[in-house]
Amino acid sequence: MHVLSSAVSKCDVPSPHENLLDRFQRVRNFTISLVSELSEADASAQSMSDTSPAKWHLAHTTWLFETFVLCEYVHTYHLYDNRFSFLFNSYYEAKGARIPRTQRGLITRPSLAEVIAYRFYVDQKMKEMIPLLPPAALELVWLGCQHEEQHQELLVTDILHLFSINPLEPTVWATPGQAMPTNPRLLQWITMAEGPVRIGNSGDGFSFDCEKPEHTTWLAPHAIADRVVTNREWQIFIDNGGYHNPALWLSDGWSWVKEHAIESPLYWRRDQHGGWTKHFGLDGVTLLDLDGPVRHVSYFEADAYARWAGARLPTEAEWEHAASSLNPSAGVFMDKAGVVQPLCAPDDDGLQQMFGDVWEWTGSAYLSYPGFVPEPGAVGEYNGKFMSGQFVLKGGSCATPRGHVRATYRNFFYPHQRWQFTGVRLAKDL
Amino acid sequence: MHVLSSAVSKCDVPSPHENLLDRFQRVRNFTISLVSELSEADASAQSMSDTSPAKWHLAHTTWLFETFVLCEYVHTYHLYDNRFSFLFNSYYEAKGARIPRTQRGLITRPSLAEVIAYRFYVDQKMKEMIPLLPPAALELVWLGCQHEEQHQELLVTDILHLFSINPLEPTVWATPGQAMPTNPRLLQWITMAEGPVRIGNSGDGFSFDCEKPEHTTWLAPHAIADRVVTNREWQIFIDNGGYHNPALWLSDGWSWVKEHAIESPLYWRRDQHGGWTKHFGLDGVTLLDLDGPVRHVSYFEADAYARWAGARLPTEAEWEHAASSLNPSAGVFMDKAGVVQPLCAPDDDGLQQMFGDVWEWTGSAYLSYPGFVPEPGAVGEYNGKFMSGQFVLKGGSCATPRGHVRATYRNFFYPHQRWQFTGVRLAKDL
Amino acid sequence: MHVLSSAVSKCDVPSPHENLLDRFQRVRNFTISLVSELSEADASAQSMSDTSPAKWHLAHTTWLFETFVLCEYVHTYHLYDNRFSFLFNSYYEAKGARIPRTQRGLITRPSLAEVIAYRFYVDQKMKEMIPLLPPAALELVWLGCQHEEQHQELLVTDILHLFSINPLEPTVWATPGQAMPTNPRLLQWITMAEGPVRIGNSGDGFSFDCEKPEHTTWLAPHAIADRVVTNREWQIFIDNGGYHNPALWLSDGWSWVKEHAIESPLYWRRDQHGGWTKHFGLDGVTLLDLDGPVRHVSYFEADAYARWAGARLPTEAEWEHAASSLNPSAGVFMDKAGVVQPLCAPDDDGLQQMFGDVWEWTGSAYLSYPGFVPEPGAVGEYNGKFMSGQFVLKGGSCATPRGHVRATYRNFFYPHQRWQFTGVRLAKDL
Amino acid sequence: MHVLSSAVSKCDVPSPHENLLDRFQRVRNFTISLVSELSEADASAQSMSDTSPAKWHLAHTTWLFETFVLCEYVHTYHLYDNRFSFLFNSYYEAKGARIPRTQRGLITRPSLAEVIAYRFYVDQKMKEMIPLLPPAALELVWLGCQHEEQHQELLVTDILHLFSINPLEPTVWATPGQAMPTNPRLLQWITMAEGPVRIGNSGDGFSFDCEKPEHTTWLAPHAIADRVVTNREWQIFIDNGGYHNPALWLSDGWSWVKEHAIESPLYWRRDQHGGWTKHFGLDGVTLLDLDGPVRHVSYFEADAYARWAGARLPTEAEWEHAASSLNPSAGVFMDKAGVVQPLCAPDDDGLQQMFGDVWEWTGSAYLSYPGFVPEPGAVGEYNGKFMSGQFVLKGGSCATPRGHVRATYRNFFYPHQRWQFTGVRLAKDL
Repeated sequence: MHVLSSAVSKCDVPSPHENLLDRFQRVRNFTISLVSELSEADASAQSMSDTSPAKWHLAHTTWLFETFVLCEYVHTYHLYDNRFSFLFNSYYEAKGARIPRTQRGLITRPSLAEVIAYRFYVDQKMKEMIPLLPPAALELVWLGCQHEEQHQELLVTDILHLFSINPLEPTVWATPGQAMPTNPRLLQWITMAEGPVRIGNSGDGFSFDCEKPEHTTWLAPHAIADRVVTNREWQIFIDNGGYHNPALWLSDGWSWVKEHAIESPLYWRRDQHGGWTKHFGLDGVTLLDLDGPVRHVSYFEADAYARWAGARLPTEAEWEHAASSLNPSAGVFMDKAGVVQPLCAPDDDGLQQMFGDVWEWTGSAYLSYPGFVPEPGAVGEYNGKFMSGQFVLKGGSCATPRGHVRATYRNFFYPHQRWQFTGVRLAKDL
Repeated sequence: MHVLSSAVSKCDVPSPHENLLDRFQRVRNFTISLVSELSEADASAQSMSDTSPAKWHLAHTTWLFETFVLCEYVHTYHLYDNRFSFLFNSYYEAKGARIPRTQRGLITRPSLAEVIAYRFYVDQKMKEMIPLLPPAALELVWLGCQHEEQHQELLVTDILHLFSINPLEPTVWATPGQAMPTNPRLLQWITMAEGPVRIGNSGDGFSFDCEKPEHTTWLAPHAIADRVVTNREWQIFIDNGGYHNPALWLSDGWSWVKEHAIESPLYWRRDQHGGWTKHFGLDGVTLLDLDGPVRHVSYFEADAYARWAGARLPTEAEWEHAASSLNPSAGVFMDKAGVVQPLCAPDDDGLQQMFGDVWEWTGSAYLSYPGFVPEPGAVGEYNGKFMSGQFVLKGGSCATPRGHVRATYRNFFYPHQRWQFTGVRLAKDL
Repeated sequence: MHVLSSAVSKCDVPSPHENLLDRFQRVRNFTISLVSELSEADASAQSMSDTSPAKWHLAHTTWLFETFVLCEYVHTYHLYDNRFSFLFNSYYEAKGARIPRTQRGLITRPSLAEVIAYRFYVDQKMKEMIPLLPPAALELVWLGCQHEEQHQELLVTDILHLFSINPLEPTVWATPGQAMPTNPRLLQWITMAEGPVRIGNSGDGFSFDCEKPEHTTWLAPHAIADRVVTNREWQIFIDNGGYHNPALWLSDGWSWVKEHAIESPLYWRRDQHGGWTKHFGLDGVTLLDLDGPVRHVSYFEADAYARWAGARLPTEAEWEHAASSLNPSAGVFMDKAGVVQPLCAPDDDGLQQMFGDVWEWTGSAYLSYPGFVPEPGAVGEYNGKFMSGQFVLKGGSCATPRGHVRATYRNFFYPHQRWQFTGVRLAKDL
Repeated sequence: MHVLSSAVSKCDVPSPHENLLDRFQRVRNFTISLVSELSEADASAQSMSDTSPAKWHLAHTTWLFETFVLCEYVHTYHLYDNRFSFLFNSYYEAKGARIPRTQRGLITRPSLAEVIAYRFYVDQKMKEMIPLLPPAALELVWLGCQHEEQHQELLVTDILHLFSINPLEPTVWATPGQAMPTNPRLLQWITMAEGPVRIGNSGDGFSFDCEKPEHTTWLAPHAIADRVVTNREWQIFIDNGGYHNPALWLSDGWSWVKEHAIESPLYWRRDQHGGWTKHFGLDGVTLLDLDGPVRHVSYFEADAYARWAGARLPTEAEWEHAASSLNPSAGVFMDKAGVVQPLCAPDDDGLQQMFGDVWEWTGSAYLSYPGFVPEPGAVGEYNGKFMSGQFVLKGGSCATPRGHVRATYRNFFYPHQRWQFTGVRLAKDL
């Protein structure tokens, strides 16, 4: 997902101001906690063009507060270093040139310590000014916090990807001691009726602009699986030749499989017998948790799996409608710095794992809603800029900060991307 | 569009058998007429990976009748040359290996004459057998005719692309003598109400499987332009810096513009003063018809233009609903071998140019309809295989054989492709 | 080899004028005879960026006479078509823009017949003018004939490459009836003494400027093989794991082997048992002639073979010194249109196969000789332009017109190229 | 240059053993001093595929002593970490797989501190064992020291390249206080007679195997410039359109210029008026020293400059013969960690700047000498592996450790490479 594709259209910041200040401080501190185990080199390297160095995430999120809040609303503010606007801008054409995305890992200076000093400088100003800012600025603070939460997830997944390339298989954090629950129930289908439903965001709380407006759509009769696909189920797909049967794949997907010799989800590792029983995570190489959700699969893989299973992926509207009455803050989310991993589905009736655990690929392209209105100004410059070629994912993951997502939340990636915690929930026509 | 993404689900072939025979002969003869002005070299060359040599179109369409009709239903049939299955197969993994798509232009043998002999051989058998074939086979004959009509359009657009690269600017056919009507009326907006509508194909006539099933969808209140965008309007977009303003473009589109230094529609040519007043067509370089529809624009360009104009592209459902009561065979289509070109909109009230003239980009991704059922067997192997990354186009063009399209017809291309006769109709939210 | 890297520094054209006229006519007619079996499509296609269409060779060689002789020396001359200067120019920056080398296969017009008409037009003028031209122009005529002979070889090897890609394995000419001699003698080493020798061209006959001047170089004591390596010997290299042992290869060569999965010389084909017993040639697929010279090997392969054999490649000076007393017009050359192929070494004492059969890779880089003087003017613009990254080959091949080469002749290609008739003669230090 | 293309053929280690121990310690300590100003991130990043991280240089040089000395000759030795063999091997196929060269910058663990600990561990063992090792092992120690000196130069040039990409233009070391001498004398030509000379290494001191054997070659009459080309002279070349005149360039060079839009030596920077008056170095951006040697130019540039100047590059033999009586340890070399830069030529008669300052491109390809014998074993696996496509450079540079080079020393790079301190000396035929 390309972040900051958003803007707020009305003032939905909770009052009084102190609450926003608390949130600002909590978010900012949490980001710092995520890099506490990283070396200067870990924080500077970039493993592929889709990822960014941790140091860049730290600085870019800070740059946003500096540029859109302090520079715009605090006329006595002095830029920390005017060259940082160039270095840590992401894709805002209106804000000037930027370094090529593929070369972020070569910016070894400023150092991690200097970036943290930059954060400290901006944070001090922000904390001083938040009680004094006008509502329009407070909306931007709120937006900046949301934006930073997105980068927290990216920071964690980017580090995971970097370490996955290192033959030493480094461990960022120790494996969590908790025992993994096992034996998920048989997958159940939950039937959904035909008819008009309302989806999209009504604007009563914070939301990104691409979630709006709320509007009517029509659902065909269908059923949706009560839990996501597990690693054990995915092993059967592999054993059944799933990665070698072109009839299961989209044409672009089959080209991708062949070009990259794809044979399993991204971080699966073979054991000494050649079996797919291990995987690489933030705690290094461990045994694959067979009853946990499959993760780090692309849309192409999710779609092929669904076809193999005689099902399909849910549409965004189907998913959102099913999730609309659930609590979006309950589930397996990222609450603290440490190993994140999705868990086995609880042994309960009804829809499980809708929020948290893994982002769920939908069969819907990421496109604008009827009545979509791009926001003016540089923050909104890229609203809707990514509406070609990508698919929507819903529900958040174990690497998403708790409280960040909601049913209307729209994440999106290209169909070949899979370094996020992405998984699969099945649906079918009735 | 990748052709033959289709199958017929019920016997919708008109009886008696003679009608199908007539159609078969008409279609087959028309294809031959399209290559009458081509040299052996013209018919063998491939100008880019998206296109195919004319000779390949001639042979591939024949291969389909041979493989799926004669080989399956006529047990006394002898293959014309078993190596042709390899050479002229397109993308049917189930039917064996195939030569790389990019090397089709290197297959200088068999010759054009040999390919025409192959056509003659298969046609003789087909004409002999059509009166005797069972209904299931007749459906395939019908499908084969539809398939060949798709290739007729591709053949013409592929030749246009080939000749556009030649610095000698060859002319395939003489410019038509007819005067181009001028002075289109001011663009009018036609208002459409909110509510449920039925789109997709009910299966009462021939259709490709991706058009089915008919189903309900919900339209938001909107308006649709009564005609397509003209070359004159596009010149204003260019003069206004449209190709140099990143705020107008999708992110992927902006990358495409910069990488390929795009500055105009595909076949526009500068005059000696640097002005965009000429274009290249099947009749060589001529003056741009300012009141005719802009054509050979990509989705990226169509989308950028719409944003610049304060509008958007219609969704597939909006377009289809608006077109549902119009005659899909009336309009500017390809009726005979010769220069094809869209015309200025008639000076009439109501929706103009919906069918024919130019394919109209919609803002809808090419994805499956609820209840979509892929057909079994090798003909249907690739049903739905192209449902990622592409956008739907509607209505046919001046290079589409008359009678080929209908309101539910779904053409699709990647957002950067523009060698077809692709144009733009605007819509807007109300 | 990039042709026309040359110029003549003194008038070495045989008198009287009629001899040059005869030669001109013979060379021009021979080129036409080489395309007599090609279709319009065969003559227009380009199989890779290193090759050119036959039609292009026909036109480019004509363009040279038109541009450098007729336009310069015949003031009443009218250009046949001024657009041909653009189309058929090769790399003369001074003569204006040119179409990208990779797109020559897309120039389907002018037709083969038109190009032959162009040849006829220029030939008529040339034949009329040759008796009247001043000496400086006659030198250019002579040069143009040499240039055309180079293109005759390229035309044949380019067609071979084009047909090698066609799964139908077309045959250009019938296999020659002659029996292939067999059982070459054991390879003998011919000892050469240390000391100064003269190499390079003294300028007493025609030569390209890169062959000049004659100069002294010093040879170390060495031995040179009396014949070239055979296909049978190469099979042993393969069976011995030659293509899978990195210790045998140059670093760049090993990268090339792995990237392209090289396992044999270019046109070798496996039989149904997986053995390398067949090859593709101008007469289609035939049995490999085991006692004939290995051909279509790259420098990387030649160098690896030599290392495997405990030997090395000869230097250019060693080869040229050894060849200096031999008749450069005796041997297996191209005398007429038809299948060309190298033959088994004769059962004689002394150096065999030095001229004709296969171009022999030397271990010498293609660089300038001391005292090398580039020629002025557009013909000489690219003199010496190719002096980086290429290796010298000596002696001509079965596809070289008889009489074209001499001991001082310097052909050159990049170390990965192998679509010419390139083979291997061994040498060793003493 | 690809290092370690070498081996020693006889024991040329100075006795007594203590001298070697001293040298070992001096070399090892000097390497550490070079990274003292680098951060962990600076030491881990890789700026392009030709360069390596400083940390990798530190570890790889250590790996060599561990692998070829301690593992082979000290049977009680315990590997520090067996995974380091994989990580820090360079290109020794015989020693097992290695990580892709382009991903060295992603190995953020082990840390710089861990690599330094690895160095300490190996150094302790080495210092303990050197007095006890047999002569064959001592030769390898000597070789390892030479190898490490090569990496010292690469380490410095790689860091310079990394920092040159950073928009912040970081400074590694403060600018040296010394005043730059100015006003070099007019270039003088020194005449050299024709005749046989001896070049190559006689084996009386240490040398890499590609320098051997000493052998006779023949020089044509020529003259060689008494100093190298200056920045001021290069500015004239630029002002004279040197980078825009294809007639000056090799064909491959002209492609390189156009593809990369080359307009100046690698680290030249424009001032605010667009003039080329600044350059980037280890001390950041400073004024170009106009009378200092031009540096960071490719072979293509050196060759084009020479052609423009009506001269040529010297051959390796010409250069080596001219240098044979000079002291290879006198000149501008790297004596300590700090800014390195070539200096203006002294105001003296005779050949200046032959050793040190800048590596001088010769017009000779890097190929084997007659009688070249590759060394056996894994150290020598790649002897001669780089003998295609590269050109020889002579004399060392300001980044070469003093004492490292000699007249017979052969450095080599591809003609487009220019991140080393590479410059130009002219020669001409007489």
